[in-house]
Amino acid sequence: VGQPDLDRLLGTLEAALGPAGVLVDPGLLQRHACDWSGEDRCAPVAVLRPRTTAEVAAALARCNESGWPVVVQGGLTGLAGGATPRRGEIALSLERLGGVDALDLPTATLVAGAGTRLQDVQQAAAGAGLAFPLDLGSRGSCTVGGNVATNAGGNRVLRYGMMRNLVVGLEAVLADGTVLSSLLPMLKDNAGYDLKQLFIGTEGTLGVVTRAVLRLYPEPIERITALVALDSFDALTSLLMRLRHTAGSLSAFEAMWADYFECALSTLGYARPFHAQHPFYAVVEVEAAEPVADRERLESTLAAALDEGGVRDAVVAASLEDAARIWRIREGAGELIGRLAPAMAFDVSMPLALMPDYVRTVGAGAARLGVRAFGAFGHLGDGNLHLIVAPGSASDGAAVDALVYGALRGSVSAEHGIGRHKRPWLAHTRSAAEIATMRGLKRHLDPRGILNPQRVI
Amino acid sequence: VGQPDLDRLLGTLEAALGPAGVLVDPGLLQRHACDWSGEDRCAPVAVLRPRTTAEVAAALARCNESGWPVVVQGGLTGLAGGATPRRGEIALSLERLGGVDALDLPTATLVAGAGTRLQDVQQAAAGAGLAFPLDLGSRGSCTVGGNVATNAGGNRVLRYGMMRNLVVGLEAVLADGTVLSSLLPMLKDNAGYDLKQLFIGTEGTLGVVTRAVLRLYPEPIERITALVALDSFDALTSLLMRLRHTAGSLSAFEAMWADYFECALSTLGYARPFHAQHPFYAVVEVEAAEPVADRERLESTLAAALDEGGVRDAVVAASLEDAARIWRIREGAGELIGRLAPAMAFDVSMPLALMPDYVRTVGAGAARLGVRAFGAFGHLGDGNLHLIVAPGSASDGAAVDALVYGALRGSVSAEHGIGRHKRPWLAHTRSAAEIATMRGLKRHLDPRGILNPQRVI
Repeated sequence: VGQPDLDRLLGTLEAALGPAGVLVDPGLLQRHACDWSGEDRCAPVAVLRPRTTAEVAAALARCNESGWPVVVQGGLTGLAGGATPRRGEIALSLERLGGVDALDLPTATLVAGAGTRLQDVQQAAAGAGLAFPLDLGSRGSCTVGGNVATNAGGNRVLRYGMMRNLVVGLEAVLADGTVLSSLLPMLKDNAGYDLKQLFIGTEGTLGVVTRAVLRLYPEPIERITALVALDSFDALTSLLMRLRHTAGSLSAFEAMWADYFECALSTLGYARPFHAQHPFYAVVEVEAAEPVADRERLESTLAAALDEGGVRDAVVAASLEDAARIWRIREGAGELIGRLAPAMAFDVSMPLALMPDYVRTVGAGAARLGVRAFGAFGHLGDGNLHLIVAPGSASDGAAVDALVYGALRGSVSAEHGIGRHKRPWLAHTRSAAEIATMRGLKRHLDPRGILNPQRVI
Repeated sequence: VGQPDLDRLLGTLEAALGPAGVLVDPGLLQRHACDWSGEDRCAPVAVLRPRTTAEVAAALARCNESGWPVVVQGGLTGLAGGATPRRGEIALSLERLGGVDALDLPTATLVAGAGTRLQDVQQAAAGAGLAFPLDLGSRGSCTVGGNVATNAGGNRVLRYGMMRNLVVGLEAVLADGTVLSSLLPMLKDNAGYDLKQLFIGTEGTLGVVTRAVLRLYPEPIERITALVALDSFDALTSLLMRLRHTAGSLSAFEAMWADYFECALSTLGYARPFHAQHPFYAVVEVEAAEPVADRERLESTLAAALDEGGVRDAVVAASLEDAARIWRIREGAGELIGRLAPAMAFDVSMPLALMPDYVRTVGAGAARLGVRAFGAFGHLGDGNLHLIVAPGSASDGAAVDALVYGALRGSVSAEHGIGRHKRPWLAHTRSAAEIATMRGLKRHLDPRGILNPQRVI
């Protein structure tokens, strides 16, 4: 295949999508959240911008006939390189498939196009007195299609689950242009195989998500946030278990190891919330139905934990500004990575019992490698640990990878997905039988291998 | 294939599973919850009783080599005929793969074998001060494997979701004996395709579930139950929406149309909870973190709804006995079906907005058919409606099916699955493209078609 084949294909695509539906600019260089080396920055040979599901189907059918590789794109905020084009790929952007409709109050659902930004879904829900609980730092850019395709997580998984739990119905297009559409607002439907599961978290390799029915929840009357200092990992898990029982609506439990905490404070210039330094910190968030009673319950739970030991200090935010200041320490991770550049970010999960030894082992190994910075934090309630490592020299990257994944008994990707960057490590988490089954599914549903090739598996 | 082939196969199976692992009794007639006609009662040619996942794998590999059809069995409580043997099938019972282990307190998970009864999972969780929230009337007989394979629902889906939401990890065996095992207690894991989704709700047609990691929740301090009488369907949905906002922990909202309610009271001889008769009733359950405050909140919400109209009367249970009496009316459905025998039970779902007209249409049609009884009730918050119809004569069954499904724009199975009984109606809910995709998956994962043939698709 060469330029004449591409020209012929682009001609049929333009006939299907109209002139505004096919952008061809050989100099086009897209900005991706996860770009971290020159080699990754590669312009797509064209960007397709369908406006409807039918246009997505027409575009895919044509690319499939030609066997032309397609990279599917949403808000370009992914952290695993899944949407970054490889040489010669056509990009299929869902940006024009946006918009929220069919807000159903009794069922508490809405329908959103794949190109709808997460923030717009949250605002549409808020306009109806409800909330869409998925929340990520990239809410202003990331889109529903990408949230579904990556099974996005975020801070409130503890209470609401990941994106998979929030998708009630889905419309997706297979590689050959077949449209599978199941968009009725029904929370229960066991009529045959639940085909939407094929497209949630498979990162666009088995089909292209075009629309989703999303589940909404009541907007909590108030969120109460606390920052807690603790003396051990055991104290962290004890507090998590205690809060789970006394506060029915615990919505976040974010742990920070001292190295992350100190690095965030000093690098980002934040005020120190406690006088002393402590080995562990946790950001706790409770969704309150009765703000006064729930705040008292949280305070008395923390007081009891202080008395019994383990918890060394705690502050409950008295204002939204206080709460934002507490969250900033935890959410400063993105900025921290920027300041420490070049820095590597990891997103692993494991049984909680293994976590303290794991962090110790990796931290000691990182020190031996002479890293500039090392920090650990994560969504403790979900077993999800994030690591930030700033290698001493660029050439240490491979050694850091080997260290982080080598010591891991768990998942090489808790929430960011596999994409291109983590593909070499997939076999660390999944067995040969599992990978063979994934490959078989891929070949079965996309026999010509046009959808996001060389991603995930 | 004939008796010599079967004898040869049974010989290899006995070599793999031991003599106690293969029961052969040509007169063996199993009792199934869903048996409703003589034709359905068919003895399996043998019952396999593996004790380990390796034995399940060995048994399936041998049946697959011979191309011999296998029906997978758990507690035999399914309502769609999926586990009822067809002539010539070998039954694979998971009854000896029971037992709970690996209870992980910080993560709030446990691992259960497929043969573990639901009630035993609930008790193991309670023993650790936690709760497994899935709950069905058949809890004493149904098993984890069946709960997973049918994506079981029940009364608390509103708060906790269906079985799919409660499965953290899974082990399953493919038709050819390949074992896929992912049993680490991690709530987040986006490392490649989430293969467990292939086995949840696919009713044993794509693989056999052998073990599951299940998610536990804090045991609520108290459950508060109320029975409410209302004057319209709109009042029902208004109350649902109101309770969703004022009670963060609404765990059940079960609606009953007057015809079901009156039929349950008179047929089962229950005391009348309200003096007057009303068009609609609802059982409301709230999980309380602070019993006194939560009860007051529920009472004031109901009082406000009474003042504004729509709600005509309400009682909040003052004791566990009161609560049990309220639930008995709703849960009397099973007994009611027995008393009305022969009676047909339906399990459909639809957008809530369509539900009142649907029940009116089907009720009027049923009256025209001269049915002996007609009743509607369901998990309103989930869009799930159950219908009980006692046809005037056995020959009216087909007409009732046509009536119930003909008027439906929604799912022919909200929670019971498709099995054998609803297979003819699958195309009413799923498109030709969806059914072709399901068939393709089935052929891909079970090319010889040995697993639960003629079920689902």
